Amino acid sequence: MYSFTCDYTEGAHPEILRALTETNMQQEPGYGEDSFCASAKKRIREATGCPDADIFFLVGGTQTNSTVIDGLLEGCQGVLAVQTGHIAVHEAGAIEFCGHKVLTLPQHQGKMDAGELKAWLDSFYADGTYPHMVQPGMVYISFPTEYGTIYSRAELEGIGDVCKQYGLPLFIDGARLGYGLASPAADVTLQDIAGLCDVFYIGGTKVGALCGEAVVFPKGNAPKHFFTHIKMHGALLAKGRLLGIQFDTLFTNGLYMEISAHAIRMAMKLKTIFAEKGIPFYIDSPTNQQFPILTSSQMAELEGKIAFEIWERLPDGRAVTRFATSWATKEESIKTLQQLIG
Amino acid sequence: MYSFTCDYTEGAHPEILRALTETNMQQEPGYGEDSFCASAKKRIREATGCPDADIFFLVGGTQTNSTVIDGLLEGCQGVLAVQTGHIAVHEAGAIEFCGHKVLTLPQHQGKMDAGELKAWLDSFYADGTYPHMVQPGMVYISFPTEYGTIYSRAELEGIGDVCKQYGLPLFIDGARLGYGLASPAADVTLQDIAGLCDVFYIGGTKVGALCGEAVVFPKGNAPKHFFTHIKMHGALLAKGRLLGIQFDTLFTNGLYMEISAHAIRMAMKLKTIFAEKGIPFYIDSPTNQQFPILTSSQMAELEGKIAFEIWERLPDGRAVTRFATSWATKEESIKTLQQLIG
Amino acid sequence: MYSFTCDYTEGAHPEILRALTETNMQQEPGYGEDSFCASAKKRIREATGCPDADIFFLVGGTQTNSTVIDGLLEGCQGVLAVQTGHIAVHEAGAIEFCGHKVLTLPQHQGKMDAGELKAWLDSFYADGTYPHMVQPGMVYISFPTEYGTIYSRAELEGIGDVCKQYGLPLFIDGARLGYGLASPAADVTLQDIAGLCDVFYIGGTKVGALCGEAVVFPKGNAPKHFFTHIKMHGALLAKGRLLGIQFDTLFTNGLYMEISAHAIRMAMKLKTIFAEKGIPFYIDSPTNQQFPILTSSQMAELEGKIAFEIWERLPDGRAVTRFATSWATKEESIKTLQQLIG
Amino acid sequence: MYSFTCDYTEGAHPEILRALTETNMQQEPGYGEDSFCASAKKRIREATGCPDADIFFLVGGTQTNSTVIDGLLEGCQGVLAVQTGHIAVHEAGAIEFCGHKVLTLPQHQGKMDAGELKAWLDSFYADGTYPHMVQPGMVYISFPTEYGTIYSRAELEGIGDVCKQYGLPLFIDGARLGYGLASPAADVTLQDIAGLCDVFYIGGTKVGALCGEAVVFPKGNAPKHFFTHIKMHGALLAKGRLLGIQFDTLFTNGLYMEISAHAIRMAMKLKTIFAEKGIPFYIDSPTNQQFPILTSSQMAELEGKIAFEIWERLPDGRAVTRFATSWATKEESIKTLQQLIG
Repeated sequence: MYSFTCDYTEGAHPEILRALTETNMQQEPGYGEDSFCASAKKRIREATGCPDADIFFLVGGTQTNSTVIDGLLEGCQGVLAVQTGHIAVHEAGAIEFCGHKVLTLPQHQGKMDAGELKAWLDSFYADGTYPHMVQPGMVYISFPTEYGTIYSRAELEGIGDVCKQYGLPLFIDGARLGYGLASPAADVTLQDIAGLCDVFYIGGTKVGALCGEAVVFPKGNAPKHFFTHIKMHGALLAKGRLLGIQFDTLFTNGLYMEISAHAIRMAMKLKTIFAEKGIPFYIDSPTNQQFPILTSSQMAELEGKIAFEIWERLPDGRAVTRFATSWATKEESIKTLQQLIG
Repeated sequence: MYSFTCDYTEGAHPEILRALTETNMQQEPGYGEDSFCASAKKRIREATGCPDADIFFLVGGTQTNSTVIDGLLEGCQGVLAVQTGHIAVHEAGAIEFCGHKVLTLPQHQGKMDAGELKAWLDSFYADGTYPHMVQPGMVYISFPTEYGTIYSRAELEGIGDVCKQYGLPLFIDGARLGYGLASPAADVTLQDIAGLCDVFYIGGTKVGALCGEAVVFPKGNAPKHFFTHIKMHGALLAKGRLLGIQFDTLFTNGLYMEISAHAIRMAMKLKTIFAEKGIPFYIDSPTNQQFPILTSSQMAELEGKIAFEIWERLPDGRAVTRFATSWATKEESIKTLQQLIG
Repeated sequence: MYSFTCDYTEGAHPEILRALTETNMQQEPGYGEDSFCASAKKRIREATGCPDADIFFLVGGTQTNSTVIDGLLEGCQGVLAVQTGHIAVHEAGAIEFCGHKVLTLPQHQGKMDAGELKAWLDSFYADGTYPHMVQPGMVYISFPTEYGTIYSRAELEGIGDVCKQYGLPLFIDGARLGYGLASPAADVTLQDIAGLCDVFYIGGTKVGALCGEAVVFPKGNAPKHFFTHIKMHGALLAKGRLLGIQFDTLFTNGLYMEISAHAIRMAMKLKTIFAEKGIPFYIDSPTNQQFPILTSSQMAELEGKIAFEIWERLPDGRAVTRFATSWATKEESIKTLQQLIG
Repeated sequence: MYSFTCDYTEGAHPEILRALTETNMQQEPGYGEDSFCASAKKRIREATGCPDADIFFLVGGTQTNSTVIDGLLEGCQGVLAVQTGHIAVHEAGAIEFCGHKVLTLPQHQGKMDAGELKAWLDSFYADGTYPHMVQPGMVYISFPTEYGTIYSRAELEGIGDVCKQYGLPLFIDGARLGYGLASPAADVTLQDIAGLCDVFYIGGTKVGALCGEAVVFPKGNAPKHFFTHIKMHGALLAKGRLLGIQFDTLFTNGLYMEISAHAIRMAMKLKTIFAEKGIPFYIDSPTNQQFPILTSSQMAELEGKIAFEIWERLPDGRAVTRFATSWATKEESIKTLQQLIG
């Protein structure tokens, strides 16, 4: 049985395993001071067009979100996110654990609206009692969103403009960044992302790595004690080489974008298959997560042969499902699906 | 140049890389629910003689210490440790970040004394003002200690008895557990360790793994929401397979103890070499960390050929140094050292 | 100009000042171990019908909410409250500062609905991913609510039943408790409140005291280290006598309920005045806070003579306003208002 | 029986009670925006010679310490204090609760030594592993200390110079500030204190008030969101007038220094009595706390007539005791003691 349940079902891209194996007995210092991290940072500075970027390699997404957000906020500040933002729902209160409230805005297919952000801030400061409330300290968005959608350049600029007006850093959660940038609907590049925010991360876990997220402060604008801060959060890997080697590999010869593009090609085939069968979608996603609404008989056809995620059961017996492709998805699995689904 | 600076300079034991590579494309669920984690837990339950043990795989040592300690303590409780305990010095305040004070006792070659622990607790409760102070909530020791020393069974029982008397869980930091158990001076086994404490961890990072620490609650005594707690701490790995495969490999055919024993053989050779040259030791360590006191000319002889860590410079020009062996140390590196040192 | 802006514009009930003055030079131990606190606790145990109650005197409302909630929750748990709950909006993130998320439910005139609470919990545990989310650990409601409304006995029992079913303690914020109990609409007494929840507090600050909230664990069910916990929160008053004397006075000869009843009589007069003028209300409040919707000309009539709070400006130029009465409200102020408003 | 056990056994200076009573029915806004707070701030700005000072009124000492320290420190920073500092011992972990470690230095009769502070900092930064440790973020001292001793101007300047060199704010805990400034041994004034540190507080609780500590940022250098920060800490008093009236009274016509001087006169009489009887002192304290070492027969003579605190029992049967005077100490109590003690 092949599983489309999520984009982290396999291990790592074979190039990464090869690099790990080849360099295995090379002695290196710990805590990210190894030569592989240095090389990976160099390559990421080039790929993002940010020669002065501060770059840190962390292990996982929730960890990265809480470490970055806690690193940027002052004590009584909170982070603005949409209600469906990963930090607002699926991180077990990791942000609140660090003492900060997640201030939520409405979502539109997973996205924040610049106008609503501005209206929230205008309204917040218009109310004379605002010093009695959590102070907004930064804005968090994800690219792609938890619904697979992506922001256009204009939308990102709009949010960025509001952030600048109110002095709020903009943080982009790029756990699936490659799959967003490789989408045919994307009108931004990795360099654009770096230019449009104050800090973002390049997701490795879901895009070919065993683990690892590369946090980028594009303008060398990392908080002063960020290294110690990472350690305090329990997020500093002793054998930093594990992260360095993976990102060095992913950013050699464009591998990161190449495997991202593969996942998107597979996702678009998947989308076409569903569409051609007249199966509706919950959301029109341009990235690696597809949300077809299947009938119970359609689901029965796949049972035991193709695994997927039930996103939400509908009252009429149908279900919103999630099919995720990744760097590891094989064309034959797509074909199997095509043959099974009616 | 060969480096003895620490025990995490190489990657992973080759068996681990082989297992990662062989299983790479096998699809597995995330977050530790994969088949490798299940198998690794089974093997660890057998190796520890604890069929009911709750086992969790975390990524690194500081993370494990803060997650376990914060999981066991109530809000206004602190953890008792010796002044040189890793959590008291080298973890960037990770315990305090979780809201808990590290209450320190004197150390004796890195070890806690059961009598002093009892005296501290007796004295604490004898003072009527104790409700105004941080309440002792658990005891933390490391095996081996930060100085490479190990507790005897009698010493562990002594500390355990005091803990029971005062209702305090005993937590053993086993970041280098294998190297302690494999020491010729050890009179306890892995099963003994499991029986003598309430929670401990089996260090992987320093004993053959790329990363990973296996937390064991021997009697199935994990706190109720410990999984969510791990996630909240940013310590839940999405691709849990990375940890499962590593511990599954380490606990197949006794690999963990076999490579630990190798490191200790190398350390004892190293120790003999220094001793035969009449070089004194800062501490008489029976494990993989050795602390010879070298003169400046001895250090000059090694310069550029053998790397080691300067632990503390002495007023007379000599230095306490640290040489660490590991699963990866080669006999030829020991011989090179032998030839160089005068 | 007389101000109806809130219920804490004056100092303390004169009896309290008299008691403070009379006892001033009597020497007493600190930290709540004085004879006044002992006497006050005895009186509150009688008034609540809870001979075994654990009682603690804290200084203010936000402090009490965060100290109680943080004292009852485990690390990765959150507190359920309605979106308009004081802890969710107006406490500057004091709950999140302690590491806990406020999980919000819809509000109905400020109240939580037992059915919606049950549905939320059913749905939470029905989703297999719930261990990745903040665990619900307790329920918070306020009596009266932030909108001046009160729960009926049946409503409280309904919420309490859901809490019991899910093993969640129920906490009632009684910052204005007296004003709720004295309402003609109330069908519960102080003893009922004590019987219907696991912990609640009797607000002093807004009901006759200079400061002070009496936290009551009706069944002697305070967490073990709650005294130390209070100190850790910075909420332990050195001269506990200040709180003891105030609550001892308020609970002598029924003063607390007597002055609460006065405030409600004044509020009902106020309500009648507005109603007789045909002025609509934003909410039909049965307690000391009234929310008439005034036109701009009505507001102009009061300007400079009667102060009140603008709660929300409406698009049509009118405004939802708040008029609060208290133990200190004088009948003549109500008459002045009556004469001014058209 | 008269008690010398501590300096907060009575209520408030009668002038304060009179002011509270006189102003009781005057309506005022809450949260420190009342006219009394404004007046008190004006008077404190004059008394400290700091026309631009930011001033905040908090309720108690532990609360003030944790609110100020947490307000000044970044996440991974700790506060330097001596081992006997109040924050290091007697505050139930309130600083760690906020996420910060208390980094301890040796004490000399309760005082920090500037040379040792500098040596600690030099050594900290000399060790290349310092980014793995808690970063020093500020220095905390108390004036007078927990042992009743006071710093000379030269000592304060010495500490201040080290702080400036390392960019660390200096915070002076002035819970008993008046008693230090009124000491015959003091060579600094209130204005000097304000000039020698970055933030300090003027203790009210122990010097004539029912409660209250006035935090002073002498150069208008309060952190941006300090008001919200206070609220988040649960330290914002709704009826701020209670604090405003008290400090307004204490800083009218020099009352604060006048009553402080009285306490010191009483303490010096006490000291002379003990000295004339040949009773040794544990510490030569120049302030309101005296630490005579009494024999068991001397303690028996006082039993039931004069209460005092046992500070530490000595092996030879004697005890270090503490006798504290205050604004409320009566000359006749001193005389009683004189007659009893042999």
